[in-house]
Amino acid sequence: MSFYAKHKERFELAQEACAKRHCWSPYPDMPDKYPDAATAKQTGKLAFDQHLTRGKFDIDQPGINQWIGEEVSPYTQQALGILYPQSHLDALFQAAEVAMTTWAQTPYEVRIGVLMEVIDTLYKDHLFEVLHAVMHTAGQSYNMAYAGSGVNALDRSIEALVYAEQAMKSVTPSALWSRRFGSSNIALQKTYRIVPKGVAVCFSCASFPTWNAWPSMMASLATGNPVIVKPHPATVLPMAITVKAFRQVLKAAGFDPNLVTMAIDSTTEPIGKLLIKHPKTAIVDFTGSVKFGQWVEQNSHPAVAFTETAGCNTVVLESTDDLDAALRNLATTMCLFSAQMCTSPQNIYIPQAGVQTPTGWVSFDEVAKRLADAVQALTSDPKKASMILATIQSHQTLALLKDMSEQASQRGHVLLSPTAYAHPDFPDARTSTPLMMQVTPHEHDMYSQERFGPISFVIRCKDAHDALTQATQDAKQHGGLTAFLYSTREDFIEQAENAYAKAGAQLTINLVGAMPLNFAAAYSDYHVTGLNPAGNATLTNLAFVTGRFGVVQSRRPVTTADTTLSANA
Amino acid sequence: MSFYAKHKERFELAQEACAKRHCWSPYPDMPDKYPDAATAKQTGKLAFDQHLTRGKFDIDQPGINQWIGEEVSPYTQQALGILYPQSHLDALFQAAEVAMTTWAQTPYEVRIGVLMEVIDTLYKDHLFEVLHAVMHTAGQSYNMAYAGSGVNALDRSIEALVYAEQAMKSVTPSALWSRRFGSSNIALQKTYRIVPKGVAVCFSCASFPTWNAWPSMMASLATGNPVIVKPHPATVLPMAITVKAFRQVLKAAGFDPNLVTMAIDSTTEPIGKLLIKHPKTAIVDFTGSVKFGQWVEQNSHPAVAFTETAGCNTVVLESTDDLDAALRNLATTMCLFSAQMCTSPQNIYIPQAGVQTPTGWVSFDEVAKRLADAVQALTSDPKKASMILATIQSHQTLALLKDMSEQASQRGHVLLSPTAYAHPDFPDARTSTPLMMQVTPHEHDMYSQERFGPISFVIRCKDAHDALTQATQDAKQHGGLTAFLYSTREDFIEQAENAYAKAGAQLTINLVGAMPLNFAAAYSDYHVTGLNPAGNATLTNLAFVTGRFGVVQSRRPVTTADTTLSANA
Repeated sequence: MSFYAKHKERFELAQEACAKRHCWSPYPDMPDKYPDAATAKQTGKLAFDQHLTRGKFDIDQPGINQWIGEEVSPYTQQALGILYPQSHLDALFQAAEVAMTTWAQTPYEVRIGVLMEVIDTLYKDHLFEVLHAVMHTAGQSYNMAYAGSGVNALDRSIEALVYAEQAMKSVTPSALWSRRFGSSNIALQKTYRIVPKGVAVCFSCASFPTWNAWPSMMASLATGNPVIVKPHPATVLPMAITVKAFRQVLKAAGFDPNLVTMAIDSTTEPIGKLLIKHPKTAIVDFTGSVKFGQWVEQNSHPAVAFTETAGCNTVVLESTDDLDAALRNLATTMCLFSAQMCTSPQNIYIPQAGVQTPTGWVSFDEVAKRLADAVQALTSDPKKASMILATIQSHQTLALLKDMSEQASQRGHVLLSPTAYAHPDFPDARTSTPLMMQVTPHEHDMYSQERFGPISFVIRCKDAHDALTQATQDAKQHGGLTAFLYSTREDFIEQAENAYAKAGAQLTINLVGAMPLNFAAAYSDYHVTGLNPAGNATLTNLAFVTGRFGVVQSRRPVTTADTTLSANA
Repeated sequence: MSFYAKHKERFELAQEACAKRHCWSPYPDMPDKYPDAATAKQTGKLAFDQHLTRGKFDIDQPGINQWIGEEVSPYTQQALGILYPQSHLDALFQAAEVAMTTWAQTPYEVRIGVLMEVIDTLYKDHLFEVLHAVMHTAGQSYNMAYAGSGVNALDRSIEALVYAEQAMKSVTPSALWSRRFGSSNIALQKTYRIVPKGVAVCFSCASFPTWNAWPSMMASLATGNPVIVKPHPATVLPMAITVKAFRQVLKAAGFDPNLVTMAIDSTTEPIGKLLIKHPKTAIVDFTGSVKFGQWVEQNSHPAVAFTETAGCNTVVLESTDDLDAALRNLATTMCLFSAQMCTSPQNIYIPQAGVQTPTGWVSFDEVAKRLADAVQALTSDPKKASMILATIQSHQTLALLKDMSEQASQRGHVLLSPTAYAHPDFPDARTSTPLMMQVTPHEHDMYSQERFGPISFVIRCKDAHDALTQATQDAKQHGGLTAFLYSTREDFIEQAENAYAKAGAQLTINLVGAMPLNFAAAYSDYHVTGLNPAGNATLTNLAFVTGRFGVVQSRRPVTTADTTLSANA
């Protein structure tokens, strides 16, 4: 049975989910629900430990020059001590182009079948191994590493295949065409071929490597392109496991494993610009900092670029039926993985008159204080804090927290000062409780950009209209992926929906309860809109795949008289 | 009846044609077959003459600053004497953004209905007016101005609407989503909105204004974006008629006519860069020179760019069943509109041993000579020449012909020297017969770029393999839209299909007979592939539309208990 046939049923369910956008996933949402969870967890941990013990992560890719690695676990603040092969870039590109020839000519259903098998392999053989790798590089909690970096990233990968298939199916493979020219008839046999753009370079980020990289890799590979993965030097292991798994499945399926290779660098000798400016680079997928992201967007031509950088995600708090519930949800979402997610809210815009509730107006100052209290309640108990805040991925984020705290004490009102908390399981973990400050639009320079990490701003606005205007302007101008609104007024909700649609941020309204506000459901929620500076990698739409291939046709006269052809005057 | 309902049947036939890629068009392919042709021709000519008489082309768009115009008819070499309104750019952008708000929120079926009505209006009320405008600016022949710049451009416009609809239909407008989180169920109502990217700037070119511009305008407008048309200063009238027709139909349909405006400039004070760098520009459609096109591609970010520049279209002549027929077709296609088409062949690669035919090998020199003879046969009779060569759009092309002729006489073997021919109807027409030269790969610098106009190179190659290698390398590296092959060897044809697929040029094989080799059939032939430097504006595929809009969602808890929602664990 072909891989396509093997995974057909699942693929069709995914297609249906993408079309209808209902809730669906083939995967259990919690680690404990994984089949034979105890064994899987143990095997995964063992595989991770063996990487540490071995100290060398072998990938049999071409052009290996030296072995490097500089990862430090945010949980132990100790070096992982794993070295990875660094290849000559030209060798990787050359091997990728060689590998592409056969892959490009393989029917896309076959490619998609093989890639569904890769997804299955990652799920069955590597999920918990990746989980520990993500924990000890990105610093995520156990549960988030399972859900966000594991099964949800696999779901988003299947989605990419669904859209790739949809885009490629729109191109008929052949046609008979006939027309009268003057007195004679011309009948042509036409064939249309999906031709990949060329070598794709996929940059994965430090804090959430798999979630963006896996779908990008799938989108490129499904449309026939080879992929060179460029992990952030702080977070290599999850992508090294990924690359190895892809290579094994591709090889077992009879394809050249050099369709997927890894290009690693170090913080002192970065290779990002070399990769983007390489003459063979045809596609760039980039997740990372705004600064480098902007360079990528401006310099990637002639390669096509799919980017997710960052922005200031906004909250407008106008009125609510249940202020405590709203603040609880906001606080939870602001704390989740110490706000090191591209979807974490950062700027909270509140009218200076306060927020209307069923029991009357609650003043601006009180709302700010109660929100800070809600955050504190979540973070003051180390055990609770460890589950929600997890760790701080980079020491640069700690430095930023320090710097912003100093600025805050001079320019704004500090609602919460950041401080390390003692992780119950990892006493040396790099941690911090959030910094929250109360500001006015005079401090716009402080909050009009992403401040990566647990940093948030409660912004005093003139009124509800002003709050909405400022929030949507900031999102439009400085980028923003997500937006959150609490309002009991239908007219204001409608205004907000229109304003955020123009600003290009995904809006969540009046959500309270067990779901984190920034939870993005695969097959249902779209990602970056491409309508503001936060990037254009929507992941789950046609635009994410159509630029990765071209259509080349070949036409020639029909040689045998084909009586089914009729002249068309 | 809505416009959508009115045009539904035609639209569905177009959808079917795009899917199956068979021959279809709602339009008669020749002027004489147009309904009540005599009257239509007369009315169209009269409308054109009135533009000349009036001397001022009125468009009631905002911010008009001055009236300018510098068009010269290639048929009379006299100034047309028509002035057009030049508006302040900021006024156009502002008006476009105002106009966009309602248009963006209009269901896309309604937008597509209105645009189908625009197409119908152009066909019914302006086709012959546009024809004369194209003749006396671009310099095309009567028949080409009807077919290529008229009905075929309308067909390509319908195609753009088909793909826009397909891309937007892939986004469901709403969904009910529910999932269990821990012990509670979260049910969300989600709405998904197609949000246009913003103001589109559409550059039309001097020699073929409508063919690229109409589909681009349709693609942008269908997906909700307003369009500012920037015509080449030499060829304004066809686009001015276009803009006015769009505005009239939009206004009559109850929409703001400022969805379509025109930004005109002069050769001495160009505004192209200002338009592309305008902060409100979100989409750029560009057809024009390689030089400016490369600047556009490199500088349009954050706008998305769809380009068609140029390249050296290649011919490989290896073997043939009927050399005379092949050379006749080649000659015709090389002469068509004096090779001022983006699809005109320029470089003819032939093995030095010659071409195999049923009667034996024909030497390289003889093939070159017979091809030159075939061209001469088509162009030595002024009446025949006028129908096929038409005129030379720009005096710069005459200058290039002169310069290349001088180089050719020094460096290569001149097969045909260019000379003006006397147009039977327009004695002052700017005309030239083709320049053909025979070269070796030593003259690669001469033919490794587009030499716009009736200039071609017969290139002596080592052998068939070398001819194919060189031809496909030149297309890949220097750009190429079309490619032509004559070979009786199936193995060589297969090699060529693979090589040209990689090079990204649309291949036509062994075509002889009444159809020009570079005839591109709407609904069937794809345009630029995006796989080489000739551009990425395929026109007739999903990639041409998906980048013109984003998807913004809004989600909120389902307020009334909806029993149809089932928890999904």
